[in-house]
Amino acid sequence: MPRQQNNTTISPLTTFLIVAFFVLALFPGLFVSVIWAPYYLVFGKEKEVPQDVYCQSPNICAPPSKMAWFQKQLTLPSKSRGSYLITDTIVRELPEIKDYKIGILNLFIQHTSCALSLNENWDEDVRADMSDALDRIAPEDKKGGLYRHDAEGPDDMPAHVKSALIGASVSIPITNGRLATGTWQGIWYLEFRSSRHTRRVVATIQGEKN
Amino acid sequence: MPRQQNNTTISPLTTFLIVAFFVLALFPGLFVSVIWAPYYLVFGKEKEVPQDVYCQSPNICAPPSKMAWFQKQLTLPSKSRGSYLITDTIVRELPEIKDYKIGILNLFIQHTSCALSLNENWDEDVRADMSDALDRIAPEDKKGGLYRHDAEGPDDMPAHVKSALIGASVSIPITNGRLATGTWQGIWYLEFRSSRHTRRVVATIQGEKN
Amino acid sequence: MPRQQNNTTISPLTTFLIVAFFVLALFPGLFVSVIWAPYYLVFGKEKEVPQDVYCQSPNICAPPSKMAWFQKQLTLPSKSRGSYLITDTIVRELPEIKDYKIGILNLFIQHTSCALSLNENWDEDVRADMSDALDRIAPEDKKGGLYRHDAEGPDDMPAHVKSALIGASVSIPITNGRLATGTWQGIWYLEFRSSRHTRRVVATIQGEKN
Repeated sequence: MPRQQNNTTISPLTTFLIVAFFVLALFPGLFVSVIWAPYYLVFGKEKEVPQDVYCQSPNICAPPSKMAWFQKQLTLPSKSRGSYLITDTIVRELPEIKDYKIGILNLFIQHTSCALSLNENWDEDVRADMSDALDRIAPEDKKGGLYRHDAEGPDDMPAHVKSALIGASVSIPITNGRLATGTWQGIWYLEFRSSRHTRRVVATIQGEKN
Repeated sequence: MPRQQNNTTISPLTTFLIVAFFVLALFPGLFVSVIWAPYYLVFGKEKEVPQDVYCQSPNICAPPSKMAWFQKQLTLPSKSRGSYLITDTIVRELPEIKDYKIGILNLFIQHTSCALSLNENWDEDVRADMSDALDRIAPEDKKGGLYRHDAEGPDDMPAHVKSALIGASVSIPITNGRLATGTWQGIWYLEFRSSRHTRRVVATIQGEKN
Repeated sequence: MPRQQNNTTISPLTTFLIVAFFVLALFPGLFVSVIWAPYYLVFGKEKEVPQDVYCQSPNICAPPSKMAWFQKQLTLPSKSRGSYLITDTIVRELPEIKDYKIGILNLFIQHTSCALSLNENWDEDVRADMSDALDRIAPEDKKGGLYRHDAEGPDDMPAHVKSALIGASVSIPITNGRLATGTWQGIWYLEFRSSRHTRRVVATIQGEKN
């Protein structure tokens, strides 16, 4: 029976098809990669494949999202009462800003007797005047009777009022890897307590990367 | 003509190849799943496949983004003039916070005679002092002539001024499923109208999930 | 040797399998698309395939993220001292808001002598009263001695103080394509300098699209 024998003999072509079938089944992306390899070799890849590609199993991967979050806790240089320009400190501590095409930087101070703000970045007289103006708006209790809460001294409650007026956080847009602040705008840290305090800031960057 | 007959008879192997081909064509991810099943059975999956996987057609799915948005409208307990600590209310109403590794909670009050802020979370004297201090900063019109707008009474325009000074929203970073507030920081709702009001807050959480 | 000849002749079926194999290897998503085409033709697609699908190579694409960022610089109409309602200007300049199911609009003014806020959107007396109230809180220097910084005139330093009190930015939630502001809430631009100034605003929208 020659026909019987014919069926049980596997031809080289059939062997190739079976092997190829399993390669294809188990590595679905392999052939496309191989076919495009010479093209990429000659013309270069439009963009590097990022290293944080998310894979559920080998060869079934998704391209990574360009949306990204970054968070870091900073400690500001210890200061007593006054207004301080901290733009340079912030930019130096957060080189990650330059990775974002569009985004928002949120700076959040974890205390209730100081504040963060945006204001003039050139004349330090503005900073001295600001601290004085806030002292007039939320004055210390000279005659008694202004405040119930004075646990930590006469500068305690005025500091809480100023903190509520100015605010604990700023949100600054990021454009093409840079803070989108105006020409005269700087980031300010305002300390409202008389004695030196060390303040912690949580910096959160979110946005779309390049 | 035995050759003719050979061509029209389909061998079992060829049948297998044709069937396998169609299975592969229509369910591209099936074989990889089957091959990896015993491995996952023995060692467990590194992470559960989330339920909100996005599929364009059967078996062509992408892993879900870990970026997520959540929004909810809350109603604050009805209050008259005063400063109120609402951290517990907010955290209880937003159990979703704990799903976020990094994020921002934005609370936005939909009114112009009250405000949200962050301030001292321990001594209620601070809250009483704050309301009094704001009354001195934006006083009611005792002698007449201070304000044009008094449609809803003498506390109407001062409430709008205080609302502009303190602000309608706070943005609080989220770190590892918790609000990244400092030890003494709490979320405050400040009501500036004398009579009881019920206020609505839009809570928006955005961030990267675990 | 008939067996020899049998091996070198490629049957039509084998030819089909080889061709089909290469089609499958090079266009992994093709068959699924073809099979689903009649279904889509009859019942319509649940959602249109977006145009910004991200592809690493032909036919290995991921569905696009619904997370999106948008940023635009606006110029506000030139104004002198006063409070101005700019809700309509903002909404008209940012038709992109309606694409977002959940999101946040951040408006950031790139100057330190003006501010953005949210306040009453009906009675323009509120706006006039607000500017006057802020003049009382951060007064011009009538007798001399209040401020060191007066480079640009008596309204210079008071403008910086007001800017710190009110703030350079607002963050407004977006719900189902609309700003989630309350019934009486409008977006305000407060100009603190006496003479006309033209101010730039960076608008950043982030969120989850429909």
